[in-house]
Amino acid sequence: MLKPQTTAEVSQILRYCYERNLAVNPQGGNTGLVGGSVPVFDEIILSTALMNRIISFDKVSGILVCQAGCILEKLNEYVEEQGFVMPLDLGAKGSCHVGGNVATNAGGLRLLRYGSLRGTVLGLEVVLADGSALDCLASLRKDNTGYDLKQLFIGSEGTLGVITAVSILCPQKPKAVNLAFLGCQSFAKVLETFTTCRAMLGEILSAYEFMDEKCMELVERHLKLSSPVTGSPFYVLIETSGSNSTHDEEKLNNFLEQAMSSGLATDGTVATDDKKIKALWSLRERITEALTHDGHVYKYDISLPVGKLYDLVTDTRARLGPRAKNVVGYGHLGDGNLHLNITAESYSHSLLEAIEPFVYEWTARCNGSISAEHGLGFKKKQFIGYSKAKEAVLLMQRFKAMLDPKGILNPYKMLPSGS
Amino acid sequence: MLKPQTTAEVSQILRYCYERNLAVNPQGGNTGLVGGSVPVFDEIILSTALMNRIISFDKVSGILVCQAGCILEKLNEYVEEQGFVMPLDLGAKGSCHVGGNVATNAGGLRLLRYGSLRGTVLGLEVVLADGSALDCLASLRKDNTGYDLKQLFIGSEGTLGVITAVSILCPQKPKAVNLAFLGCQSFAKVLETFTTCRAMLGEILSAYEFMDEKCMELVERHLKLSSPVTGSPFYVLIETSGSNSTHDEEKLNNFLEQAMSSGLATDGTVATDDKKIKALWSLRERITEALTHDGHVYKYDISLPVGKLYDLVTDTRARLGPRAKNVVGYGHLGDGNLHLNITAESYSHSLLEAIEPFVYEWTARCNGSISAEHGLGFKKKQFIGYSKAKEAVLLMQRFKAMLDPKGILNPYKMLPSGS
Repeated sequence: MLKPQTTAEVSQILRYCYERNLAVNPQGGNTGLVGGSVPVFDEIILSTALMNRIISFDKVSGILVCQAGCILEKLNEYVEEQGFVMPLDLGAKGSCHVGGNVATNAGGLRLLRYGSLRGTVLGLEVVLADGSALDCLASLRKDNTGYDLKQLFIGSEGTLGVITAVSILCPQKPKAVNLAFLGCQSFAKVLETFTTCRAMLGEILSAYEFMDEKCMELVERHLKLSSPVTGSPFYVLIETSGSNSTHDEEKLNNFLEQAMSSGLATDGTVATDDKKIKALWSLRERITEALTHDGHVYKYDISLPVGKLYDLVTDTRARLGPRAKNVVGYGHLGDGNLHLNITAESYSHSLLEAIEPFVYEWTARCNGSISAEHGLGFKKKQFIGYSKAKEAVLLMQRFKAMLDPKGILNPYKMLPSGS
Repeated sequence: MLKPQTTAEVSQILRYCYERNLAVNPQGGNTGLVGGSVPVFDEIILSTALMNRIISFDKVSGILVCQAGCILEKLNEYVEEQGFVMPLDLGAKGSCHVGGNVATNAGGLRLLRYGSLRGTVLGLEVVLADGSALDCLASLRKDNTGYDLKQLFIGSEGTLGVITAVSILCPQKPKAVNLAFLGCQSFAKVLETFTTCRAMLGEILSAYEFMDEKCMELVERHLKLSSPVTGSPFYVLIETSGSNSTHDEEKLNNFLEQAMSSGLATDGTVATDDKKIKALWSLRERITEALTHDGHVYKYDISLPVGKLYDLVTDTRARLGPRAKNVVGYGHLGDGNLHLNITAESYSHSLLEAIEPFVYEWTARCNGSISAEHGLGFKKKQFIGYSKAKEAVLLMQRFKAMLDPKGILNPYKMLPSGS
């Protein structure tokens, strides 16, 4: 494992490897879930761990420029002190690197409000396979001079270049944050609650997450967390972020009244102080952790038209029957993103064969994505055809061949092995 | 000029042209300002004028799928009826095509609020130079399966492929829209007013536009518009869009009180009804039209760090002196985007030489962009080097050569002639 500190050192390493046909596995915080950040055979690991310098922050525009190895949570703390927040937030924030976030086009909990990294990343510095540095590190909200090259590297999972620095637009830190945690009696109610709250909360809605009762059971059993809301088959977490706490609370209360009186939700709680907000968020954020205590976990990260989101969980549960220990569904409902997880006492090939390609075929039939935010990495690369047309995959392979003709950058990842 | 109605017809045309080495100029509403949508020599014009069919609209998610030749304003009317708005709005909305908007990565008046097309465009269908169709027409907010190929075509000005269909995420129609039009005594006050209103209006701020007194003079003289606010060297237009009119008006009034009492603004008016809102917007939106009545117009569309935005106008005015009839500055201040326009009785090469490369060099020194939103087209392609590194331009040329090896798509545009 090599730990360069500067872009020049990354260039040197890649030049050396390129000349000698040595494969390189770029690695950030190594928190990915599809095996994109770990070597497969004999790759040299190129870690961004020591590239953790903040280069600049502009307090008027909120534009942060930093090295790729900065940890997301540290960056958020830094910009919060100046009245801003990072435009993304995810469970792994304590260890993931911003460069890895960009390389995997991380989604997370704030996408509903601040949009994807394709809009908030303003510039990148990238070192290409042959060691040459590509400077696209602009700090402008608008720039239409030629093709937007940086977009190709966002979400390319280290297969086209190594991101060494990032310029990113940070939104203002909201002055008021409120949380509602509700119980719903059916998934139809979860959906109706979403359209109702989107209409009533409008511009202050910053997260709409859902989890089923199985998730809640696991979080309570394995992590000893306790929920103030119980006895429902579904739970939703609604966050508002705004600039006026009185207005926000009024909007939230109006919505809650409507939700309760019309039977959308049957039970609920509201949090306005930091401590209770954190406790409620942890019910949702720590599901992944709870699952790892439940046995072997088969993980799926699916985009679907929102109305069909939970049917996949129900169908999978019915298909697997007692062969699965637990089949749970949760995720970023506001973005149409389902995390489908299946646990069993231990790994079994026959169970895997019952799940795959069933889940992928189901998703493809609905024109969904078999990887909403986790990427393809090593584990899912052979399944790209379920979500992308053959011509599109061929074109991706041509881009890869053009930018990395020797195939040294994160080989065996993202794209299916050539035919 | 050929006017296909379907993607299959576009494919046929391009296949024919590709085999025979015939150059093609894709054209939408032909409203571009840099000569990207008009033929230079003997190109065949491929117009999307008859490709104006709406394919689908999902009322839950707000995702619109339509052919490339739909007119922006018509699309906006269509989605408004269903409670949504298009995520972009610009002066040319009455004739520009959404395909052209995507091909040029149009910015416009709503970018401050809804972000760029790179975040809101969810999918594209594109016909490549050889006539093959590339289907990336997804309707998902999140999809991390492979490289995001559509991004390469957004803003490629028709040089890499012809966009035939677009999938785009529409935000909810705001329930309340308010406008404030203020006079400021200096550009420093314009900036201070911006940071104050951003903090106080927060999530409901949807536009922050500025214009100098010269713009106002031209709009009054040539278009006979009259402004309710007069006698200031600068004017700002502040728009709020929100879900609760009482809350929005309270926020806006609090801000106005602060702006007036602290001397940020010296005069102002507020509009809440549609008619007055439209009248105030036209003071800003019709500046371009007023300029055309003033003589020959030299147009520049610059991105700069917001603090330096107006210095370029002042410096250009001082440099040109009486050789220019008018030197005016206006634009999307919230996005750091200045429209610098210079008028003269007629075109003069010596005046052009006094402006260029002065304006481009000035912009490059501030790490700005010489084309914030208009693109490069035919007129500005030779100046790309002021905003993009040499290696980046070389890489763009490699992409062009890969996707359009015969160079038939919109030749002589965007990229500098190869050396």
